[in-house]
Amino acid sequence: MSTVEPRRVIATVCLSGTLEDKLAAAAAAGFDGVELFENDLIASAASPAEIRQRCADLGLTIDLYQPFRDFEAVPPDVLRANLRRAERKFDVMEQLGVDLVLVCSTVSPDAVDDDELAADQLRALADRAAARGMRVAYEALAWGRFVNTYEHSWRIVRRADHPALGLCLDSFHVLSRGGDPALIRTIPGEKLFFLQLADAPQLDMDVLQWSRHHRLFPGQGSFDLPTFVGNVLSTGYAGPLSLEVFNDVFRQADPHPAAVDAMRSLRLLEEQLGFPVADPAPQLAGHAFAELTVDEVAGARVADALTALGFARTGEHRSKPVQLWEQAGTRVLLHTASSTPDSAAIGALAVQSEEPRRSARRADAMGAPVLPRTRGPEEADLASVEAPDGTEVFFCDAGSWLSDFHAVDAGDAPGPLGITGIDHVALTQPFDHFDEAALFYRSVLGLEPEPVTEYAAPFGMVRSRAVCNPSGTVRMALTGTLVRRGEWAPAVRDPQHIAFACEDVLAAARALRERGAPVLTVPDNYYDDLDARLGLDPELLAELRAGSVLYDRDEHGEYLHLCTEVFGSRIFFELVQRIGGYSGYGVPNAPVRMAAHRRRRLANG
Amino acid sequence: MSTVEPRRVIATVCLSGTLEDKLAAAAAAGFDGVELFENDLIASAASPAEIRQRCADLGLTIDLYQPFRDFEAVPPDVLRANLRRAERKFDVMEQLGVDLVLVCSTVSPDAVDDDELAADQLRALADRAAARGMRVAYEALAWGRFVNTYEHSWRIVRRADHPALGLCLDSFHVLSRGGDPALIRTIPGEKLFFLQLADAPQLDMDVLQWSRHHRLFPGQGSFDLPTFVGNVLSTGYAGPLSLEVFNDVFRQADPHPAAVDAMRSLRLLEEQLGFPVADPAPQLAGHAFAELTVDEVAGARVADALTALGFARTGEHRSKPVQLWEQAGTRVLLHTASSTPDSAAIGALAVQSEEPRRSARRADAMGAPVLPRTRGPEEADLASVEAPDGTEVFFCDAGSWLSDFHAVDAGDAPGPLGITGIDHVALTQPFDHFDEAALFYRSVLGLEPEPVTEYAAPFGMVRSRAVCNPSGTVRMALTGTLVRRGEWAPAVRDPQHIAFACEDVLAAARALRERGAPVLTVPDNYYDDLDARLGLDPELLAELRAGSVLYDRDEHGEYLHLCTEVFGSRIFFELVQRIGGYSGYGVPNAPVRMAAHRRRRLANG
Repeated sequence: MSTVEPRRVIATVCLSGTLEDKLAAAAAAGFDGVELFENDLIASAASPAEIRQRCADLGLTIDLYQPFRDFEAVPPDVLRANLRRAERKFDVMEQLGVDLVLVCSTVSPDAVDDDELAADQLRALADRAAARGMRVAYEALAWGRFVNTYEHSWRIVRRADHPALGLCLDSFHVLSRGGDPALIRTIPGEKLFFLQLADAPQLDMDVLQWSRHHRLFPGQGSFDLPTFVGNVLSTGYAGPLSLEVFNDVFRQADPHPAAVDAMRSLRLLEEQLGFPVADPAPQLAGHAFAELTVDEVAGARVADALTALGFARTGEHRSKPVQLWEQAGTRVLLHTASSTPDSAAIGALAVQSEEPRRSARRADAMGAPVLPRTRGPEEADLASVEAPDGTEVFFCDAGSWLSDFHAVDAGDAPGPLGITGIDHVALTQPFDHFDEAALFYRSVLGLEPEPVTEYAAPFGMVRSRAVCNPSGTVRMALTGTLVRRGEWAPAVRDPQHIAFACEDVLAAARALRERGAPVLTVPDNYYDDLDARLGLDPELLAELRAGSVLYDRDEHGEYLHLCTEVFGSRIFFELVQRIGGYSGYGVPNAPVRMAAHRRRRLANG
Repeated sequence: MSTVEPRRVIATVCLSGTLEDKLAAAAAAGFDGVELFENDLIASAASPAEIRQRCADLGLTIDLYQPFRDFEAVPPDVLRANLRRAERKFDVMEQLGVDLVLVCSTVSPDAVDDDELAADQLRALADRAAARGMRVAYEALAWGRFVNTYEHSWRIVRRADHPALGLCLDSFHVLSRGGDPALIRTIPGEKLFFLQLADAPQLDMDVLQWSRHHRLFPGQGSFDLPTFVGNVLSTGYAGPLSLEVFNDVFRQADPHPAAVDAMRSLRLLEEQLGFPVADPAPQLAGHAFAELTVDEVAGARVADALTALGFARTGEHRSKPVQLWEQAGTRVLLHTASSTPDSAAIGALAVQSEEPRRSARRADAMGAPVLPRTRGPEEADLASVEAPDGTEVFFCDAGSWLSDFHAVDAGDAPGPLGITGIDHVALTQPFDHFDEAALFYRSVLGLEPEPVTEYAAPFGMVRSRAVCNPSGTVRMALTGTLVRRGEWAPAVRDPQHIAFACEDVLAAARALRERGAPVLTVPDNYYDDLDARLGLDPELLAELRAGSVLYDRDEHGEYLHLCTEVFGSRIFFELVQRIGGYSGYGVPNAPVRMAAHRRRRLANG
C-alpha cells in the first residue's frame, strides 16, 4: 500500500446549490478537485474560462467533465451528430482546462448490440480527443442497454485499443449488481482512467432509481468499499478517489456540512485502506458524563427528577454555573446557561478515552470542528469537538476533570436507585444529518454503526441507528425522520434522553412510585397486548403494568425500561435493564412512549 | 350498479397522530367508520370501551380490527399460543364492539406450506370467533410466505368452508403483483367480508417496501381501481369501501386535510363507478383570470412588468383595491391586499365554466371548502373554493364579472405583445400537499393529471405534474419537492408564475429588449449546450440567445419560452409559444431558470 495520500475529488452533483455554491463548499472542506457535472455548468452564468479561474483561485482542479451520454454503437448519421456534439464539449473542456471526459455506456434506442461497432466508434472518439490532448473514460452504467458490467466495458476498451481510451470504474455500478470486484485486479492500472466512489444501503429496487436517489458517501451504506478500492489500487491506479453520490437528502442540504461529511467519508476509507490518515481511535472506557444545558425553570425540574432517580448533587464548578450530580460513579452535569424559557437539552456528552489527546487529534483529522475552550487557570484542559447536531463531545481521562468541581453538601436525598452508569445517550438528529451523524461517530470515536431500523411512529416514519464501541460501554442511539417530522402536532420536538443502566428496573419503579417521581404512564392497552403476544408470567406482567415499565425481548435476552416525563423543551430520562444478551434499545416500544409523551404534554396544556 | 351510496371507511393507519387525533379527523371529513389499527389502540390511554364510546360520539363505526398476523399453518404448540392470542384480541374486540378481524396470510418462519393445515386452523379460529359472534377476514399479503394471491387465499377459505370465515381483498396486494382482478367476479359476494383500497405509483421495487411507504389514495396513483372495485361490486359485495394507505408523507401530515383528501378520493372513485355522487364537471372554456395579491411596493413592480408585457390597466373594481389588466382578452387582476412588505403571490385563479353554479355544487360535493364572499349590491355573485395550497379558485361565466369593474383610462402603453391568453398557471405546492393537489383539481375541476416528472434542481429534487382539461384550454403545472426543499439557500421560496400564451416569443423578446423589460437572463452556457445537443439553425440559436429565450422540443413539436425576474416574494411571468403538438412545459429548462433566479436575487442583495 502506498503511503502517499491519494487526491480527493468530489463530483459537483453530490452537493446542493449552484455551481458557485458547490465549488466553495468543496474547497472549504479540503477537496483537491472536482468532477464537473455538465448541468451545473450549463446553469452557471460564468463562462468555462471563468469557472477554470474560479477553481484555480479556490485551489481546486477539475479532474473530469461528466457525463457524455449515448455515444457509441449507433448508425452513421447518429455517429456524425454525436461526434459534432463531442467536439463542442471538447471546446468547453479546453476552456475549462480539463482533459478527461466520462462517456457512459449507451441507453439510447438508436444503439445496437455490437461490441465491435462500439469499440470502433469509441476509438474514433478517442482519436479526436487525443488530437486535442484529451482522454475518454468509458463507464458501464448498471442499467446500460447492452453494456452494464465493468467486465463488458473493459472488453470494449481492450478491443478499441487506443491510448486515449480507458475505463472509469464506479463502485455503485459494480456493487449494486453484485459484481465481483476481484476481476478488477486483472486490468492494467494505466487503463483505469478514473475511479468514482459511492456507497448505498442494500435496497431491493430498480437499480436506476436506487442510484439516482439513494447513494451515500462511503461508510454510510452497506457496500464493501475497502475491498473494492483495494482491488483498484492493486492495479497501480494512481488517480483520484472521487465521490459521486446522488442522494435526495444531500441534494437539498447545506453544501458546506455535506462536503465536510463527504471528506470525512474519504478519510475513513483511506484509513481502512491503510493510508496514514489519522491517529487510530483510542479505546473508550465508557461515558464520562452527560451535560444538560438548562434555564432556571427547567433546571429546577431536572434537579428534582435527578433527585428522585437517586442522584445527589455533589459538586459545583469552580468558575461556571454547572452542578455535578452523581450516583455510583454515574455523572450528570447541569449547566444553567440557557435564557430560553423552559429549555433543557443535551449540550455535551463526554467519553472516557484511554488517551484523550489522541482522541482529539483523531477528531481533528476526521474533520470534526474543535471547539474553543475557556477555562480557569487551575481547571482541566478538556478537548472537545462539535457533532453534526451541535452537541459538544468531550474526551476525558478517568476523572481529573472532577477537580474542577468543589464538593457541596448533597443534603437530604432519597438514596440511590441501583443506577450503575449511562447505558446510552439518545439524540434525535435533524432530518438532513442522520447519515452524517452515524459516520461522524464512527470515524471520530471509532464507534460501530448498527443496522438502520425504520418504524412507524405517531407523527411520521422514524429511522433509528445505534453506534457503539466493541465492549458496549459507549452507546448512542441516533434517530431521525424518514421524510421530515410532521409540523402539525404540538408534540415534543426532537426529544433527547439519557438512558441510565439500572440493576433492577422493577425495584426502581416501586421506589419511584413511592417517591412520587414523574414517571411516564404507559397505557393498559400496551400490557394487554404484551399479554396476548408473549404470555408473560402474570406476576411479572402485573409488576410491569404497575410500574409503567416497558418490556422487549429478542433471541438473546430481555429488556426492561421506563421513562420519565419530558422536562423543559426536549429532555427525558430512561432507566434500562439488560437481561441476558439483549443488545437492542426497545425500539418496538418507542411509538407507545411517543404517544404517551404527547398525551402528557397536551394534558399539561 | 346500485344507487345506494356505499359506506365510507378509513383505516386509522392512513393518518398521522394519536388515535384520538385520527378519529377526530376521520369524523370531521365525513367518514362513516374506521378500520382500527392495533398499534393505534395499544398506544392509546383510552380503554377499548372508551374508544367505542368516542367513536359513537363522533358518529363513527369500527368496521374492522386489524391486523392479526402469522396465525395459520403452524405446529400444534404455536397454534395453541396463537389461539390464546386470538382470544385476547377477541376480548378487546368485544369491548370495542367490532365483530370483524383481519387475518393476514402468514410470513412466519414457524409456518409450513400446507393449504389443508391452513384451512383447518383458520376453521378452528372461525369457530372460536363465531362462538363470540365474530367473523374472520383472511387476506393474502402480496409478500405472504406461501399465500400471496387472492386466488390462493380464496382456495383456502373455500376449503375451510366456515360461515364465519371470508376474504378480505386489498387492491394493493392484488394489483401490485399484476394480478388479474377479473377472477374476483367468480367469488360469491357473501364470502367477501371486507374491501381495502389503495392506489400506488408504478414502482419497480420490493413489494413490501412499496406497500409500506408509497401507497396513495385512489386516483393519485396508476392502478385501475374502477375496474377492480367494479369487479368486487359485481359479486354483490355490499360492505364498505375502506381506504388503507401506508404513505410516508401522509404519516407526518396534518390528519385533517389528509382525511379530506382521502374522502375526496372515494367520492371520485364512486363517481367513476357510476354512483350518483356529484354534478358532473362542467366543461371549462379557459382561464378567466388570475389574481395577484400584492403589497404596494411589489404591486408597482408587477404593474410595470405587466405594462412592459403589453398589458393595459383597463379597469378598477367598484368596491375593492383591485385593478384589471388586459391584453386581447387575457386578464390579470392586481389586488393590493397584503401588508407584508414586497409580497406578491397568486391569490386566486378563475376558470370559465359552462355552468358556474354546477361547478360550485360539484366542488362542494368533492369536499372543496367553499369560501365566504363579500360583495357589493350590484356585483357579480362569484362562487369560489379553496385549493389545498390556499389558492382561491373561482368559477366564472363568459364575463359578467367584468361589470364589477369601471373602466379607467389605460394611459400610455407600449402596446400589445401578441399575448393571446393564459397558457397555464404554475403553483409550487407545499411538500405535504402535492398528491392532494392533483387529486383536488382532478375531482373538483375535472382536469386530468399527466404523469409525474422528477428532476434534479439546484436546491433539491423536484416533482412536477400538470393537470389540464381535454381541450388544453385550462392547464395548471404543479410542482413540489421530493423530500423537502433545502432551507439553507437564500433563494426564491415556492415560486409561482403565470405563463401567457404568445404568438411569437422571439418577436416578443425583441420588443421586451427594446422596452428594457426585466427579462431573466439565461447564461451562454445553456445555448452552447443547446447547440451541441440539437444543432439548431445558427440564426435561431442566435435569436434565442439574444432574447434569453429557452427552447425545448419533443416528438410532436417545439416550445419557446422566456421568463421575467421574480417580483415581490415569489411571482414571475412567462411567455410561452407552442409550435406543432408540443404539450409539455419546458421542464428540462427549469433548473437553468431556477439557478438564474437565485443569481438575480443574490445580485439584488
